[in-house]
Amino acid sequence: MEIMQVVGPLVCTRRHPGLYQHSLRVLRDAKGRIQVALDTSGCRPGNWVFVVSGSAARYACGDARVLTDLTVGGIIDFWDRTEH
Amino acid sequence: MEIMQVVGPLVCTRRHPGLYQHSLRVLRDAKGRIQVALDTSGCRPGNWVFVVSGSAARYACGDARVLTDLTVGGIIDFWDRTEH
Amino acid sequence: MEIMQVVGPLVCTRRHPGLYQHSLRVLRDAKGRIQVALDTSGCRPGNWVFVVSGSAARYACGDARVLTDLTVGGIIDFWDRTEH
Amino acid sequence: MEIMQVVGPLVCTRRHPGLYQHSLRVLRDAKGRIQVALDTSGCRPGNWVFVVSGSAARYACGDARVLTDLTVGGIIDFWDRTEH
Amino acid sequence: MEIMQVVGPLVCTRRHPGLYQHSLRVLRDAKGRIQVALDTSGCRPGNWVFVVSGSAARYACGDARVLTDLTVGGIIDFWDRTEH
Repeated sequence: MEIMQVVGPLVCTRRHPGLYQHSLRVLRDAKGRIQVALDTSGCRPGNWVFVVSGSAARYACGDARVLTDLTVGGIIDFWDRTEH
Repeated sequence: MEIMQVVGPLVCTRRHPGLYQHSLRVLRDAKGRIQVALDTSGCRPGNWVFVVSGSAARYACGDARVLTDLTVGGIIDFWDRTEH
Repeated sequence: MEIMQVVGPLVCTRRHPGLYQHSLRVLRDAKGRIQVALDTSGCRPGNWVFVVSGSAARYACGDARVLTDLTVGGIIDFWDRTEH
Repeated sequence: MEIMQVVGPLVCTRRHPGLYQHSLRVLRDAKGRIQVALDTSGCRPGNWVFVVSGSAARYACGDARVLTDLTVGGIIDFWDRTEH
Repeated sequence: MEIMQVVGPLVCTRRHPGLYQHSLRVLRDAKGRIQVALDTSGCRPGNWVFVVSGSAARYACGDARVLTDLTVGGIIDFWDRTEH
């Protein structure tokens, strides 16, 4: 599972109905690579989170039909990027 | 889920029947890497989209038998690449 | 799904019975990275193809028990590598 | 399966209930890339371990509902990084 | 599926019971990246093999409960690395 920082929401009016009403977050990893994750944790811009990928990402939404391959797994209490 | 820009259609007359009549799009990510995704969103060249991979990509076609590992999940309203 | 060029067959007399009689192809991607894919399309050296990975790769063989994680999905009609 | 070194625990009070009470470890691979894995092996900082990803990672927790995509598979007896 | 060279066995007395008695091999890919795979082919140090990842890796052990995400799929008869 990767550690990433929340950049902000992703606005996408034309999106697949299989995403239901879940919110999408733009995240950035330590190397600056951008990813989109589905969020059920209520994370905010600047938070450091870890993300779950693959089939586990769908179960993390409480409904395996949700069409995500990346879901926020938790908000990290304290993360010093310079330490890692 | 990755954010990519639509380059154009992929023309493939000899393709696996398991793709049914779905259209294929050539996409490019922020680093110039090329991928092919199945599209049900009607995206156009130049659109920025996010894509869903893995088993979720098959469910995104409304039929888990469709042989894709990457499907367009939505068309992003506004995406400024220089910002990210 | 990735776009790769067919290099040639892979000869492997001691291979897993779960591959049945399917032919294996050596493929090279745009960055020169080598991969092996199972082929049911009849592609030839020099052809540009797109490949399907993950669980979809197994379904693409018409039998989910086939032990592949990469299968040729189709032969591209025309692909100019310098354009992409 | 990748070989990684244990850095230490990850403290995450706001985390997904689907992780149950399992402990999370911060790991670093040979190139310094940081990952988070669920641990059932009791590994300690400095241990070299191998990790299992994908759906196998969920089964490795003894309960396929656990929301992980990376789980520690075993503690390596002796690993000399300079040799590899 | 990737092509890798067998380095040698991985000794791991404290390993997950879900690996049963299967042997683990340390493999190296063309870029020197190290991976661990489960082996049922009897490959030896120096052999060039191709490996199967994801859910197919579990089926390749003849028992989908085996906790691997990478399994040796076959021993390549002849592989000249300088050619590829």
